[in-house]
Amino acid sequence: MKHILKISICKFLPVLLMGLLFFSSYNANAQEKDPKATWIWYPGDYEIWLSNKMQARRTERGAFLPPLWRYYSPYALVTFRKDFELPEEDKVAIHTEGDFKLQIDGKLVHGRPESITIPAGKHSMVIKIYNQERVPAVFIKGKHLQTDESWKVTFEDKEWIDETGKASDQSGTNWEAVGTWNFNTPEDLPSEFQLATKPQYVVESKPMGEGELVDFGRETFGYVKFHGLEGEGKVSLYYGESEEEAMDSAYCETLDHLEFDGSQAEDYTLKNSKAYRYVQIQTDPGVSYDSVSMLYEYLPVEYRGKWNSSDELLNEIWDVSAYTMHLNTREFFLDGIKRDRWIWSGDAYQSYLMNYYLFFDNASVRRTLLALRGKEPVASHLNTIMDYSFYWFVGIYDYYLYSGDEEFIKNFYPRMVSLMDFCLERRNENGMMEGLPGDWIFIDWADGLSKQGEVSFEQMLLARSLEAMAVSAEIAGDEKGQAKYQTLADEMKEKLFDVFWSEDRKAIMHQRVDGEVLDNVTRYSNMFGIFFDYFKEEQKQAVKHSVLLNDDVQKITTPYMRFYELEALCAMGEQEFVLDEIRDYWGGMLDLGATSFWEKYDPSESGREHLSMYGRPYGKSLCHAWGASPIYLFGKYYLGVKPLSPGYETYEISPELGGLEWMEGKVPTDNGDISVYANSREIKVSADHGIGTLKFESRSKPRSKDGEIKSLGNDAYEMEVQPGKEYVVSYKALK
Amino acid sequence: MKHILKISICKFLPVLLMGLLFFSSYNANAQEKDPKATWIWYPGDYEIWLSNKMQARRTERGAFLPPLWRYYSPYALVTFRKDFELPEEDKVAIHTEGDFKLQIDGKLVHGRPESITIPAGKHSMVIKIYNQERVPAVFIKGKHLQTDESWKVTFEDKEWIDETGKASDQSGTNWEAVGTWNFNTPEDLPSEFQLATKPQYVVESKPMGEGELVDFGRETFGYVKFHGLEGEGKVSLYYGESEEEAMDSAYCETLDHLEFDGSQAEDYTLKNSKAYRYVQIQTDPGVSYDSVSMLYEYLPVEYRGKWNSSDELLNEIWDVSAYTMHLNTREFFLDGIKRDRWIWSGDAYQSYLMNYYLFFDNASVRRTLLALRGKEPVASHLNTIMDYSFYWFVGIYDYYLYSGDEEFIKNFYPRMVSLMDFCLERRNENGMMEGLPGDWIFIDWADGLSKQGEVSFEQMLLARSLEAMAVSAEIAGDEKGQAKYQTLADEMKEKLFDVFWSEDRKAIMHQRVDGEVLDNVTRYSNMFGIFFDYFKEEQKQAVKHSVLLNDDVQKITTPYMRFYELEALCAMGEQEFVLDEIRDYWGGMLDLGATSFWEKYDPSESGREHLSMYGRPYGKSLCHAWGASPIYLFGKYYLGVKPLSPGYETYEISPELGGLEWMEGKVPTDNGDISVYANSREIKVSADHGIGTLKFESRSKPRSKDGEIKSLGNDAYEMEVQPGKEYVVSYKALK
Repeated sequence: MKHILKISICKFLPVLLMGLLFFSSYNANAQEKDPKATWIWYPGDYEIWLSNKMQARRTERGAFLPPLWRYYSPYALVTFRKDFELPEEDKVAIHTEGDFKLQIDGKLVHGRPESITIPAGKHSMVIKIYNQERVPAVFIKGKHLQTDESWKVTFEDKEWIDETGKASDQSGTNWEAVGTWNFNTPEDLPSEFQLATKPQYVVESKPMGEGELVDFGRETFGYVKFHGLEGEGKVSLYYGESEEEAMDSAYCETLDHLEFDGSQAEDYTLKNSKAYRYVQIQTDPGVSYDSVSMLYEYLPVEYRGKWNSSDELLNEIWDVSAYTMHLNTREFFLDGIKRDRWIWSGDAYQSYLMNYYLFFDNASVRRTLLALRGKEPVASHLNTIMDYSFYWFVGIYDYYLYSGDEEFIKNFYPRMVSLMDFCLERRNENGMMEGLPGDWIFIDWADGLSKQGEVSFEQMLLARSLEAMAVSAEIAGDEKGQAKYQTLADEMKEKLFDVFWSEDRKAIMHQRVDGEVLDNVTRYSNMFGIFFDYFKEEQKQAVKHSVLLNDDVQKITTPYMRFYELEALCAMGEQEFVLDEIRDYWGGMLDLGATSFWEKYDPSESGREHLSMYGRPYGKSLCHAWGASPIYLFGKYYLGVKPLSPGYETYEISPELGGLEWMEGKVPTDNGDISVYANSREIKVSADHGIGTLKFESRSKPRSKDGEIKSLGNDAYEMEVQPGKEYVVSYKALK
Repeated sequence: MKHILKISICKFLPVLLMGLLFFSSYNANAQEKDPKATWIWYPGDYEIWLSNKMQARRTERGAFLPPLWRYYSPYALVTFRKDFELPEEDKVAIHTEGDFKLQIDGKLVHGRPESITIPAGKHSMVIKIYNQERVPAVFIKGKHLQTDESWKVTFEDKEWIDETGKASDQSGTNWEAVGTWNFNTPEDLPSEFQLATKPQYVVESKPMGEGELVDFGRETFGYVKFHGLEGEGKVSLYYGESEEEAMDSAYCETLDHLEFDGSQAEDYTLKNSKAYRYVQIQTDPGVSYDSVSMLYEYLPVEYRGKWNSSDELLNEIWDVSAYTMHLNTREFFLDGIKRDRWIWSGDAYQSYLMNYYLFFDNASVRRTLLALRGKEPVASHLNTIMDYSFYWFVGIYDYYLYSGDEEFIKNFYPRMVSLMDFCLERRNENGMMEGLPGDWIFIDWADGLSKQGEVSFEQMLLARSLEAMAVSAEIAGDEKGQAKYQTLADEMKEKLFDVFWSEDRKAIMHQRVDGEVLDNVTRYSNMFGIFFDYFKEEQKQAVKHSVLLNDDVQKITTPYMRFYELEALCAMGEQEFVLDEIRDYWGGMLDLGATSFWEKYDPSESGREHLSMYGRPYGKSLCHAWGASPIYLFGKYYLGVKPLSPGYETYEISPELGGLEWMEGKVPTDNGDISVYANSREIKVSADHGIGTLKFESRSKPRSKDGEIKSLGNDAYEMEVQPGKEYVVSYKALK
């Protein structure tokens, strides 16, 4: 409705003045087609509120275990506003979450009406909503007037009156764009949001002591449900992502102790959802049940990205990655579903990227970015981690590139500025980031990794974040900001290489402490430098051998950093090598029975060692979002699809078989899909939107009857891909 | 308990090491005497939450009418901490408002225990509490360990762990002093706070249409209650501070429409409390009741200040002032009980001052100051009004002077700094305050009062606020701040007189617009300059005649500014003149039947004109805190009692009869009362605490057998007053 209304008022205004009849019928049609009244709120506040709720659901052996970092709070009193023109009288229904004060054309409407009738003509509506417990929100729906993204909101309408009751004419109010999601009916209250559920059943059950151990067949998440529950007494549930964990009632990470008095329902569903594959159930003698099942809880998103290939192992890896990703794509992008069930910016950053090749659910990216950022003032890094503040900026840049969503940046640019101000103020006297008390330098879980002094990795992320700021400033119309951030970014990059690049070691060194660069090379800044495109070509080629393929440099053991390591190798054309790595590493987890990918995997460990972490026998998360990176790598570096300009208006397809006989798949965009098939003789591509450039190498002159192939020399070719048409190319792959 | 515990650990530590027996018995005794376990929370958050709730209770003809300005939000997740040593094992009960995570000595306690037993020895307790709806709070009570003001709290404990589960040793956490009030039992939940109530009865009832009009005899506040309520249908209540208002169902400011289905209780109390003296009640034919009464709702505070004199009119004025003040002293200091039922900083500032001469309830001052200030970041003036930000600073200075409460300033100094930063950033290129968009310059309700350009009144309040900042900086240990604010204050005062003092007009001029001082004198800065002691003696004397007693300068019609005008006159020794003014002005309201004092009174108006304001027939508040200023004037300028150093450690008593035959009264302090009696021949004073200086003038040599009288020349004398003893002086008053 909103777009059409906008057009009606602006574009068709001359027509409107000529005769209202046309306008009315036009709108009536429009409404039937697209009646997009939706609940609106102060932008980011619902995300903050929902993330507070969600992250507080983690328990550890019955103890409440909220996040380590601070919580932000929504505003309890906000004011919504809309100026509009009605072609005819409109009866408008009003639904709110909270008490409301309604003003039409500046006049208070008495009572608390459920609907009002507004005469034809120009009007303004101002509705102030108070809710201390939930997020103040409003849903208004008439034939013409409805709440939608065109409304404005403020937490501080600086209005006052003089002694005569006259309102001030000099307003300092900052009106912002409202927040929305997909609450599109009056009954669909934002505060009552629940993920979807569907029943899942036990695959195997075996007796254990007086009770039983049930297996749901694979890693899952949801509410255990008892059927035929009778009697009085205690029931204990011990959850396990592994069989070992569920069997170990003394050390399993999550459990529930229930107490029944006989008055419970026969079909009893637990109130809290948890992550598990196995559940050990022990009951008091006085309690019995017929069977258990569970309600699988999930965010309803479509697996729009597809992958299939001649290698069944890789296909299985993609499938398990997609499932791992889906389990962790919930109210927000989680790190892991058992632990921490929290939103970590560094973890979420990888989820954004994977999402672009699986769900392309922009709303999940926005929700997560907003929940992470919180509000003013900034008093610490996101999740208290320096690198995690920077991933947030880079994540916004990527979001813009993939989605083309300029509005998001325009609306939240002030929050980008304040977080960047916080970061810049924490630079040391050399203009570099160095940990101050309260700053957690994370980088990676790696034995003995030093975070002392000026760490090159953090400077590189700052440089990239400043680039993201410069782009965002331009979108937000902040010219001075654009120039400032671009200069800072350029300076930071120069300093990075001046200080840390070693011609001897052919690497960016890890750190400088007390003015001295230490003799320590790590993979982190070297691999990021590659896909950030920060190296000169000869540096890049050198780094590949001196660092990436050099076994003397400490190896990476987390899928978290494997993500970037493999991306760097792919970016250098090492697709075949990377596929072998994937087969080994992810295949290794599958060999051990993984049904979702893990927080950490070290092939040199064995048995129960695979389950422990943080000094706890089952401390490791066996379903961690960062384990799902093959989704991203396959889509971006094998199918080879990536946007070249925001929102895929232009994009590239560079299929790389990496030794595969054939592969096929789809990459989702905001406007349909991009489909790719390739074997060593034929490439087939098609797209629903945007202008693509198919790039490939061929030993012989390629042919296509669908488009013009341009030779770039050195066996390289390209062809333009227009939307809505399949392109078939015959060629001969180099290897 | 807290003080004693502190002493036990610190001061008696050597004793403790010699033998635990002493320690144990000492503490056991201490606990019996003073077991002050209390609910604790993040400082200021409960005040914000409660004030949000309270201020959202205003309605206007059934419409919800929240404040014009922004609401702040409490933190939903906070962490409390205490390091302590136990002489013996202690079983500690844990009560929280919200989910909690408990760590003893850094180890997570599993489950959600209602009590835990902690062995003897040194320990730390960290308890993190989450509550999205109410303010996270905790009450812990053992024999030795209890929650009290010695606990610390943070909204952001910057803690993390490494891969091995080891906690970070470099913490950036800012631990602050907790907030408390008087919730001293586990059941006394802060979130369920209610004011006290007691029944009040109808004084007169008369039929009105099909219903009745009841009169509760005087202005009151509370919940209407029906007795013997039966049947089905509607009941409407129309409230009036005046009879006219209650009778005017079409225009009265507040009303209730109730609907009963027959299932209601026979004794039915309304859910919302309101301000009124009269209530018109109309019922559907199907509904009947026997009678109505009401539950008077009030903050239980003692009228510690006393006043009695030879003038019965003044005594009545004091009584009605005290009642007016009490009605407006609620969860917080309100402006008025019908309207606005909000916390306005300028109004509250006067309530602080009156409170020091009536209740001396420091907790009400602190609650109100905290609710007004809110949290970071500051984006507008308090209540959006520039002057109201400044009154907040001056109010803190006064609070310190009267209470001696250094802890309050130490704890909230950062919030003073950030608000002052906000103000200072808004100065114009001349370093003066000038209204920017969104800044409401209020000063007073006065016809045609200009707020354009640089208004001298605002510069003067800024100067005074900077002085308050300098004092506070010193208390908070911020030496650099002290110097900075003192310099800024001195500069501001100098600039004020350089620019605005007119030797021709013998007055501070009202404003400068576009670099030109306008030919406009108002009373505001001239009267404040007197009791701020900003004038040279000859300026002061000149201003008295050129402004204060000059009828050509626009008169003040609000009790709000009458407060300061009369204070200025008193400060210049015009007590007799002021008493006449009080008799006329406040006596004028009594003549019109006032049972509480009004928002505005203009003797030239008549009839219903007295009830209207803001263009509404009953828009005027007939019970407004700022109407109660005689309490303050009588205590400070007639009984003549005022602190000379913080907390009344030293103070002055300068009785001024102002033409009265005799007067007597008490002024409360934090440590007992100061009593004064005076007629033209005898003065009697006594005090419970502090060193007083009795000052008086006498035509003949005064005598006292209770102390040594010192002559100061010019008929002036003084005598030191020690606590705990009555001093009687024989003298001969000058007039």
